[in-house]
Amino acid sequence: MNNIEILDTTLRDGAQGEGISFSVQDKLAVVHTLDELGISWIEAGNPGSNPKDMEFFRSVKKLHLEHAKICAFGPTRKKGIKPAEDPGIQSLLEVETPAVVIFGKSWDLHVSEVLRVSPQENLDMISETVAYLKEKGRLVFFDAEHFFDGWKSDPKYAFSSLAAALEAGADRIVLCDTNGGTFPDAVIDAVWEAANALKTRQGINDLGQFDAGHSDPGEILGKLLGIHAHNDTDMASANTVAAVKTGCRHVQGTLVGFGERCGNASLAAVLPSLELKLGFRCLPPGKMELLSEKTRKVAEISNISIPENMPYVGRQAFSHKGGMHVDGILKTEKSFEHIDPSLVGNDRNFLVSEVGGRSIIAEKVRQIEPSISRDDPIISTLTRKMKTLEAQGWQFEGADGSFELFIRRELGPYKPFFNIEAYRVVTEHPTGNTISCSHAWVKVLVDGREEIAAAEGDGPVHALDEALNRALLFFYPGLEQVRLSDYKVRVIDGSAATAAKVRVLMTTTDGRQNWTTLGVSEDIIEASRAALVDAIEYILIRDQGSGNG
Amino acid sequence: MNNIEILDTTLRDGAQGEGISFSVQDKLAVVHTLDELGISWIEAGNPGSNPKDMEFFRSVKKLHLEHAKICAFGPTRKKGIKPAEDPGIQSLLEVETPAVVIFGKSWDLHVSEVLRVSPQENLDMISETVAYLKEKGRLVFFDAEHFFDGWKSDPKYAFSSLAAALEAGADRIVLCDTNGGTFPDAVIDAVWEAANALKTRQGINDLGQFDAGHSDPGEILGKLLGIHAHNDTDMASANTVAAVKTGCRHVQGTLVGFGERCGNASLAAVLPSLELKLGFRCLPPGKMELLSEKTRKVAEISNISIPENMPYVGRQAFSHKGGMHVDGILKTEKSFEHIDPSLVGNDRNFLVSEVGGRSIIAEKVRQIEPSISRDDPIISTLTRKMKTLEAQGWQFEGADGSFELFIRRELGPYKPFFNIEAYRVVTEHPTGNTISCSHAWVKVLVDGREEIAAAEGDGPVHALDEALNRALLFFYPGLEQVRLSDYKVRVIDGSAATAAKVRVLMTTTDGRQNWTTLGVSEDIIEASRAALVDAIEYILIRDQGSGNG
Repeated sequence: MNNIEILDTTLRDGAQGEGISFSVQDKLAVVHTLDELGISWIEAGNPGSNPKDMEFFRSVKKLHLEHAKICAFGPTRKKGIKPAEDPGIQSLLEVETPAVVIFGKSWDLHVSEVLRVSPQENLDMISETVAYLKEKGRLVFFDAEHFFDGWKSDPKYAFSSLAAALEAGADRIVLCDTNGGTFPDAVIDAVWEAANALKTRQGINDLGQFDAGHSDPGEILGKLLGIHAHNDTDMASANTVAAVKTGCRHVQGTLVGFGERCGNASLAAVLPSLELKLGFRCLPPGKMELLSEKTRKVAEISNISIPENMPYVGRQAFSHKGGMHVDGILKTEKSFEHIDPSLVGNDRNFLVSEVGGRSIIAEKVRQIEPSISRDDPIISTLTRKMKTLEAQGWQFEGADGSFELFIRRELGPYKPFFNIEAYRVVTEHPTGNTISCSHAWVKVLVDGREEIAAAEGDGPVHALDEALNRALLFFYPGLEQVRLSDYKVRVIDGSAATAAKVRVLMTTTDGRQNWTTLGVSEDIIEASRAALVDAIEYILIRDQGSGNG
Repeated sequence: MNNIEILDTTLRDGAQGEGISFSVQDKLAVVHTLDELGISWIEAGNPGSNPKDMEFFRSVKKLHLEHAKICAFGPTRKKGIKPAEDPGIQSLLEVETPAVVIFGKSWDLHVSEVLRVSPQENLDMISETVAYLKEKGRLVFFDAEHFFDGWKSDPKYAFSSLAAALEAGADRIVLCDTNGGTFPDAVIDAVWEAANALKTRQGINDLGQFDAGHSDPGEILGKLLGIHAHNDTDMASANTVAAVKTGCRHVQGTLVGFGERCGNASLAAVLPSLELKLGFRCLPPGKMELLSEKTRKVAEISNISIPENMPYVGRQAFSHKGGMHVDGILKTEKSFEHIDPSLVGNDRNFLVSEVGGRSIIAEKVRQIEPSISRDDPIISTLTRKMKTLEAQGWQFEGADGSFELFIRRELGPYKPFFNIEAYRVVTEHPTGNTISCSHAWVKVLVDGREEIAAAEGDGPVHALDEALNRALLFFYPGLEQVRLSDYKVRVIDGSAATAAKVRVLMTTTDGRQNWTTLGVSEDIIEASRAALVDAIEYILIRDQGSGNG
């Protein structure tokens, strides 16, 4: 069996990453993005831990998902009570997910020092919790927390914890390197021994049947063995791939790779390694080429930047700087590239290149102006121009509205619906006052007519937004329906501190449709102005014509 | 032999990373930092490629280095000429380094398609270049470019290229995964086969002598086998460790990990894995605990931020956020840490978050005021107060400076070092101008004395930052050393759009220490002001006393 089941835990283990904090809306957007990529399972949080998660689980049920199913996550029952009496376990049932992930202890140190129960009580906590959830009709995934540390310390006990879950009916046994300190050779040994120990326990005594890398413990056990790796020694990808080659058929990770401490195994690195290099099937056909886009999307929602040199999906992953490398690539692409970047939806980058991004641009141009073919020189010009803008921080990923406007403006002639002639934004904290206030005025020009308006706001950007809206309503009363629904700010180069460039992403809605626009500047007001202008231009084009004069 | 020879190529392969550009001064500062860490060899550039490198090689000779030796890097001779006639080879000699790294082709594809010479001519280019440099008294390190791809394509030819270098006298044979597409199991096979092929060729026919992971090809061959890995599949660390376990005793990488495309093996990850986990010796005694500091230093010189979740040395590498993790660590540190962070000079961090809580507060209170016990009612009061602030968006996670100030202010009596009496920030885009401008004035009050200052900036926050600094320098000249090193903005509830609350995180440094502070408001200027004030208060407390009046 060459199919690998993928579980993304961005919303649970990923949310443990420093600086990561999801609103309910963010969580729904992540679910939607992972579904589009074709991920099988989304571990979405612990409904018992906070009311925000409960609200999310209610909302996510209404979402139409094509590929992904949701699972809730929580610990085994508390010591000394029955699962039916444990409010944590009850909240796992309340959210009515098809699967529940239960984590339990596999490391004797944790049983005695952290949980502080007897070895047998820990095994009972595992088996009773799993059995109870099975009885309630759930698929149960057992996360064997610290399995690899447990295997190093007391392998027999570690295997007993797996067996307790398996015998109670668990559908997946997931081996976790919770502290991230294990190396691939140890992972191979531990997975192999665990699979064999479980088979023996199951009455399958022919150990020879399990041949690392060839047969499949899932088939033998009727269940899947899984791997959950952390990156504390920079081995999360290697450990995950090693575990799969040894027989694991269920892989956990976070798409972007963030998570507690140094993060989880990054699915954006693991999925192409498994599919493109080793011939396993992780995603539905045709989905791998969405990998770069969806990874960047999840990073955007999480308000973090993915490292530009991130394997496979980073903007620089296929950048060629050295002259000899560029020369080599021009002679034969294989010479300095381990895969064709388009397989993961990424682009080759170098100064003389006009290959990257090209197909996306050609497609958008075709939508706006069907007479322009893929080979038209304008496509190359646009591609080059976009690369230049991207190098300055104007990354159009996720900013569909600004991307379309960029194309329209370049295809020209483009006549904007309005121009901002001047603006002034003031934030002040006058002597004697306890709070600050912001106000703005804006002068716009539409078809030779000027209009000026002013507004106060909760901060300078809000004041500018309000003032611009008031000024434009004189000309475009339809804008009354339009409102911003999301606003994100990203510091592009944090090390320049308060003089750093910022990228502003705004999502705007008219109640029926959403679109996202972009602005980049060292000045947050100016970046916000650019995104605001695009947001309004975009809806005016849609409602009132092409905007081409 | 358990000693590993380390070669850092930050200044050569690292400089190929996108966005990396070193001045001669930068290069000397990197050399100095790597020497302090106890790195053996520094590959410093190709003196033939540009005059800046030539100037550097002249200057570096005057530097007194305790551990590190410098090597120059360049290709084998050009086709059809003798090494003595090749200006590239001559420039390698001119810089008078004790060692020269020569790279040559091991992949038949590159020989025929990129170099476009016959297989024999390529071997001649390798052996003649190596022999010539040996004759001139240099140690010669042979980088077998694309060795692993060559081994996959035509292993016999790949081995011939190694043998050509070895037989001509090369002192190191370095196996390079130039495209970064190789996995650890292939690395193990290829290193093993290469070592055996070389021994056979050397007349040592007892293949059994080479026992992967135990004996040492260096001892057998009288030369060291080396590894040079790239991170295109996120396997650079795993490949390097695998190669060492198979017998390589020379390791190349860049300390921070940057380099062409996805970067080189990061020595900051590889060195502690080899020393602390596998018992190899890579650095002189006592140096490993400088690892975090020196890695951050090289990143700073290179003007890049290291990822906060970077293995071993990242600021978050030992951050604990989940309540159960914090609880576990307080019971036994081993429970959620794969090594003691002090071994690599890093720190444990408890993130104050929705899930953390009481124990973190008690720990911080104890540091400030040791007489207050864990059970003191003030701890409960502080915990409640913090939860209220968190619900309003004041998440102290990662904001160590503001967290300490919060505790100090609440423990009281706390007298601030300064007050902002009033400020005004203006951003405007006047009619007729093409760009916007920002300016600010601030009035501060210190011990009854007022001071007012104004400044312009790249955006309103920068202007405010500059003006505040100018005003405070009158009272606290020591602030001259203090500068912001990072600035982050997070929109807390994006759906309120431009009226949404933002959370600002600022990292400030005095060159020795970093601290992070926090501000939250609907108004980004006001949020930035709060974080700025905390950043300055924090350093004033540290330098000038407790601030408690």
